[in-house]
Amino acid sequence: VKAQAEEKQDLITLTSDFGLRDYFVGVMKGVLLQQLPAARLIDITHEIPRHDVLSAAFVLKEVFPYFPSGTIHLAVVDPGVGTARRKIILKTAGQLFVAPDNGILSYILQEKDCRTYAVENTPLFPFEKSATFAGRDHFAPITALLAKGILPEKLGAEVFDAKRIEGLEPKKMRQGLVGKIIYFDHFGNAVTNLSREILGERLENPKDLRAKLKGHSIRGLQESYESGQNSGASLMINSSGLLEVFLSCENAKKILNLHLMDEILMT
Amino acid sequence: VKAQAEEKQDLITLTSDFGLRDYFVGVMKGVLLQQLPAARLIDITHEIPRHDVLSAAFVLKEVFPYFPSGTIHLAVVDPGVGTARRKIILKTAGQLFVAPDNGILSYILQEKDCRTYAVENTPLFPFEKSATFAGRDHFAPITALLAKGILPEKLGAEVFDAKRIEGLEPKKMRQGLVGKIIYFDHFGNAVTNLSREILGERLENPKDLRAKLKGHSIRGLQESYESGQNSGASLMINSSGLLEVFLSCENAKKILNLHLMDEILMT
Amino acid sequence: VKAQAEEKQDLITLTSDFGLRDYFVGVMKGVLLQQLPAARLIDITHEIPRHDVLSAAFVLKEVFPYFPSGTIHLAVVDPGVGTARRKIILKTAGQLFVAPDNGILSYILQEKDCRTYAVENTPLFPFEKSATFAGRDHFAPITALLAKGILPEKLGAEVFDAKRIEGLEPKKMRQGLVGKIIYFDHFGNAVTNLSREILGERLENPKDLRAKLKGHSIRGLQESYESGQNSGASLMINSSGLLEVFLSCENAKKILNLHLMDEILMT
Repeated sequence: VKAQAEEKQDLITLTSDFGLRDYFVGVMKGVLLQQLPAARLIDITHEIPRHDVLSAAFVLKEVFPYFPSGTIHLAVVDPGVGTARRKIILKTAGQLFVAPDNGILSYILQEKDCRTYAVENTPLFPFEKSATFAGRDHFAPITALLAKGILPEKLGAEVFDAKRIEGLEPKKMRQGLVGKIIYFDHFGNAVTNLSREILGERLENPKDLRAKLKGHSIRGLQESYESGQNSGASLMINSSGLLEVFLSCENAKKILNLHLMDEILMT
Repeated sequence: VKAQAEEKQDLITLTSDFGLRDYFVGVMKGVLLQQLPAARLIDITHEIPRHDVLSAAFVLKEVFPYFPSGTIHLAVVDPGVGTARRKIILKTAGQLFVAPDNGILSYILQEKDCRTYAVENTPLFPFEKSATFAGRDHFAPITALLAKGILPEKLGAEVFDAKRIEGLEPKKMRQGLVGKIIYFDHFGNAVTNLSREILGERLENPKDLRAKLKGHSIRGLQESYESGQNSGASLMINSSGLLEVFLSCENAKKILNLHLMDEILMT
Repeated sequence: VKAQAEEKQDLITLTSDFGLRDYFVGVMKGVLLQQLPAARLIDITHEIPRHDVLSAAFVLKEVFPYFPSGTIHLAVVDPGVGTARRKIILKTAGQLFVAPDNGILSYILQEKDCRTYAVENTPLFPFEKSATFAGRDHFAPITALLAKGILPEKLGAEVFDAKRIEGLEPKKMRQGLVGKIIYFDHFGNAVTNLSREILGERLENPKDLRAKLKGHSIRGLQESYESGQNSGASLMINSSGLLEVFLSCENAKKILNLHLMDEILMT
């Protein structure tokens, strides 16, 4: 049983805004491997736009359901590095997350049976000062302790106020359903927080779907990126079941001048 | 014996045009690891230009001979995602390839003793609809089944008409040997389909080698990228044994305005 | 004991300027895995600027102390590929480095108890000609031999003149302490060779710290990237303990027109 548990807990994913050009990712991997020579490290992405906690939160939301129980997800997008923001561990569905308490786990916190812990300064994990590289000094070492089988509750007390980014839920307003852009993929497609479930009966007549986004009126739901050709801004339900705004073969973000948290109104 | 086979088949390479910035690669890795917690995933590249099947085909051709028997290569560059294009498995020299049937395996299909199978909708692998993310919904699950030891022939019938990109072979014309640009590396060097073997006796007097490419006349064969300095467009035999067009310290693709499948004439 | 040694030596890091778009990294991984199917390959970075030996040297310096004993670091930034520059193996603190002898190990050579070996043409490792891809033809195969337990001294004679980049040490001049920019991170922050130790008592009154860099006068030491806001070029001690020049939220390299080896004068 012990062997099995160890086998499970050596799978660690890495998500950051460190970029792939420098030594930062390599250092973090070294810290993990020095503690856990058998760890299997899986890069999710290190190209999160700098300090973009919202985009990192979305990436974690998208990837974690596909990983096996026992996976530990280390996520470091940390504009508050060097400040007093907490270091948290989140446990849900047999997976663990280690991250700064800055909203990066906002979506994961919506899962059932989440338990969060704020890591404390104890002999088990004595804080070293880290003004600029908490990934190396705090988050990777915490991850290594968890991977070795230390329970989250040994590292800190349970907390119930982990930070959540506000305004991630769609709203039903008088003029219609109001959603937001919550992610841009690297093609510039704009992913919204409007899921197939929330859109519900609006999807029954795809041709009649109508949206307003920054002065643009968009009509109809396309079945693929190709079917939107020549028709300007287009809508589709993407592979995550979310409404997505795209321009066929173009960068919608740039051409339509879109930003994260821009509102989209479904009339 | 069984243990050995399993050890061999847990090595999976990944090639795609998903980019490294988003969650797509992470999701595909999760799907594989959920089925095969011990899988060892090797990224070849996820920076294939979007929908560029020809470049992906070349990358696979270049890397597969260096991998050990038992490796499974998962390759997803899939402009036809959501259409009826087939999902194929190719077996050659003890290695397996899983990919859309769109020409991405064109070069591998030239190997001896290739066998190709078109994956079918069966209880063993019931298709789920996948309009936009077949890497997650189809190709990674097929790869996982193969890695678990399921034989390709259990997943679909053998086929003999897997798609090959046309025109990849050089032609002997009246005016000379006509090759094509089949790949650009990230420095902008242009790799052609003219191998050392095909060029044959033309290489015996390297100084006399003459080529015409988009109006440019190029003369002589350089021994290295450095030896071409100050001489405009230059030719060399690259590390794969293929004729390559380069500009020392410059981007030949941009400056000479080259494109994939542009013809090069050896006079 | 043998099993333990093997377990240790299958950890191989990869550092290069090959970029992530092409097949070069994949080929090098294949060569290693064909020889060592159980090798665990850790990408440090493949985005070193082309032929930038100095930056590669800094990345290796930064990452290696975090890796466990037994790690083999394969580093290929090799502007002299195809020339007679030597292939060296460096052993220090239980770790091994395999690289061209071009200064890429300059910092590692400053470690105590370094031993360096120049790989020779022997039956154990018969050189193949490699005009353009020594990573595949020389350095990966050498790495594989070491990982299999072959001792460095079996591959070549010990040498005492491995190439070191000149001028990497700060100098005490009449006008003050003169350092140099030795690395730019991908945000354009400029890392100098002035360590906390070398700066010594200059750091006792952080507000009084004064530097001159390409005509810019900089005053004061910031505690974080944020604290430098609105104040033009700023100084801080970075996560490696080195003085760093930055512009808050801007690219200091571009805006201040900085280059590697530019001098910084501490007055």
